[in-house]
Amino acid sequence: MAVNLPPPDPQSLHTVAGVELGVAMAGIKKPGRKDLLVVRLAPGAAVAGVFTRNRFCAAPVVLAKKHLRNPVRALVVNTGNANAGTGKEGLKRALLVCESVAKNIQCKATQVLPFSTGVIMEQLPSEKLIAALPSLKPGSWLDAAEAIMTTDTVPKAFSAKVKLSGGEAVVTGIAKGSGMIHPNMATMLGFVATDARVAPGHLKKMVKAVADKSFNCITVDGDTSTNDSFLLIASGVGVEVKSEKDKKALETAVLEVSQQLAQAIIRDGEGATKFVTVTVERGRNEAECRRIAYAIARSPLVKTAFFASDPNLGRILCAIGYGGIGDLDTGKVGLFLDDVLVAKGGARHPAYREEFGVKAMRKPEFTVRAVLNRGKAAATVWTCDFSYDYVKINAEYRS
Amino acid sequence: MAVNLPPPDPQSLHTVAGVELGVAMAGIKKPGRKDLLVVRLAPGAAVAGVFTRNRFCAAPVVLAKKHLRNPVRALVVNTGNANAGTGKEGLKRALLVCESVAKNIQCKATQVLPFSTGVIMEQLPSEKLIAALPSLKPGSWLDAAEAIMTTDTVPKAFSAKVKLSGGEAVVTGIAKGSGMIHPNMATMLGFVATDARVAPGHLKKMVKAVADKSFNCITVDGDTSTNDSFLLIASGVGVEVKSEKDKKALETAVLEVSQQLAQAIIRDGEGATKFVTVTVERGRNEAECRRIAYAIARSPLVKTAFFASDPNLGRILCAIGYGGIGDLDTGKVGLFLDDVLVAKGGARHPAYREEFGVKAMRKPEFTVRAVLNRGKAAATVWTCDFSYDYVKINAEYRS
Repeated sequence: MAVNLPPPDPQSLHTVAGVELGVAMAGIKKPGRKDLLVVRLAPGAAVAGVFTRNRFCAAPVVLAKKHLRNPVRALVVNTGNANAGTGKEGLKRALLVCESVAKNIQCKATQVLPFSTGVIMEQLPSEKLIAALPSLKPGSWLDAAEAIMTTDTVPKAFSAKVKLSGGEAVVTGIAKGSGMIHPNMATMLGFVATDARVAPGHLKKMVKAVADKSFNCITVDGDTSTNDSFLLIASGVGVEVKSEKDKKALETAVLEVSQQLAQAIIRDGEGATKFVTVTVERGRNEAECRRIAYAIARSPLVKTAFFASDPNLGRILCAIGYGGIGDLDTGKVGLFLDDVLVAKGGARHPAYREEFGVKAMRKPEFTVRAVLNRGKAAATVWTCDFSYDYVKINAEYRS
Repeated sequence: MAVNLPPPDPQSLHTVAGVELGVAMAGIKKPGRKDLLVVRLAPGAAVAGVFTRNRFCAAPVVLAKKHLRNPVRALVVNTGNANAGTGKEGLKRALLVCESVAKNIQCKATQVLPFSTGVIMEQLPSEKLIAALPSLKPGSWLDAAEAIMTTDTVPKAFSAKVKLSGGEAVVTGIAKGSGMIHPNMATMLGFVATDARVAPGHLKKMVKAVADKSFNCITVDGDTSTNDSFLLIASGVGVEVKSEKDKKALETAVLEVSQQLAQAIIRDGEGATKFVTVTVERGRNEAECRRIAYAIARSPLVKTAFFASDPNLGRILCAIGYGGIGDLDTGKVGLFLDDVLVAKGGARHPAYREEFGVKAMRKPEFTVRAVLNRGKAAATVWTCDFSYDYVKINAEYRS
């Protein structure tokens, strides 16, 4: 049912010097499934991240944020259990896993970042993770992408190369996540790595700038699930980022990979049959454009209309109307489905015929474009439709 | 599939002196269906209302708000077409209908309040409404409740009697609405009438106070659909509200009827199989309790878990976590399903067993109670679950 692109071609995923991947089957939830990933970083690697703002932030997120202050040497990622809503015991267990990983690679536990995704409010079976560490096998980026899947139906991995002044750098990333109706409640993990050498301070700025234009364009109210994390790694064994031009070039490549990952999450949305780009244009500022775009993108009524290929435009206008712009002049609002002008001046365009709208919406991918006509700002978010299968997947998730 | 109470017993619905009801079949969307209601009020009746805050507020809402400034003599309500997103032409057509009603009862068009519900962004077939006015037949409150139904599966009407210092007064109300996942996008209409004489200024206060504890407890972000309206009518032909005690007694009766109507809307929620009361207690203020209650009540992940009778408590805690209290100490949060203590101190209670949770959630009605332990305020909202049928109903609504 998903609107996935073809699975990643392993040949297209460039290895990243200074980043070693190990995967294992720890049997956390089910046996015989890759569910443990350890990412080992070269000494001197720079790491920066953005994390969920949910108050019930998971134990691994608490630790990862804390350990980020130190020179990071490894990441340990498990599926099957989110270690969220687990109190002090959860912190203890996450730390035990970090300690075990640290022992293997001879660093401190505080140099290991833990990440978990899966069921909430059950204690992490840390003994299973620890027992599986000796069985880690070197893996490709595709193996790594597979090891972090939960309800995902396809692994998500993208790669790019970029020319910097000192030579070529590689950017490769993986992500997981598919609970897309309210993404703030489903765990999204994204890891993007480059071999370039980037100053830690700059990497920190870059991860925020990129998140705002990629993973934060598929989430509501910023990153708000218990476990959401997006990490940017610069192993530093490759070419150095020297000039402003280098910075910009690298950021563009990182953004490209990150946007592809973010879109891949939506394409794999639970029960999704449509991939929809929602763009709001000519607003006063980006923030208000984003608010309106989210109001459209998260509306169950709009999303069920997407599912039915039903150009029920009133539902979209209604979402624009309650999107939180108090002084919006609805008499100026225009609306497009792809290139079809459906509403102008806040009302149905006389030349619009329903069959034009149906034609646009029947496609597995289309764009909803709202034009506010009150400024020069714009924002884009990506969303999917809302189908029977969403209910099925979420009603049966734990069984 | 709905969790409806038995349909209203016509005997239980008291007539309201000074309020005459007329219903007709105008064939707006389908022939042979009651779709037009005219409510005629005695001279001197007081009327107060609360309306949607949606910027795409419908033409009838614009007119009703304006006409409310005058002594109101009649209401005209149609289903099948919402007259929303219809621009100036929509205003013109709504006014034509008001003029026709006014001619019949010899008042001014500006003394008639129009209400519409149905498909958005299509022009109101005002000629059909006007043509049907001569065929209006006197109706009961049950007829009136039936005449305003759209996707409702049952008519919604409740009645109460209240003793005031001057004698007994009657309160009878009807409502429509069943699109409950994001009720801010589905039209909710509520009309409650009493024969008591109430000063207009006081009626205005009463309608706001009552709405906040009834219809606003089932809506998100206040009243935000294009057509939502709640009207309180005091025909004034009965006993006078004299004392503070009278005011309180009448308000209590009006609240009782309004809460029953509001709950009936949720019980008839599209595809609903569960009626769930969400209470948030011991918050610092009512506003934060409401925010958290709504975060739980509108979460598709929580609602699909309700549907599955799956006590997936992490989803509820997660919603509490992103409910917008920045300084929430999650280590103090408790959670109950009916009387079952499931989480304490922000984590699963050791004595909790999943079968207890399943038992509570299997019932067609249960309560989710979150205890924040940071103050003395509380708030309650009502919601339903999220089933296959919700998607079906909304994907097929217009076909």
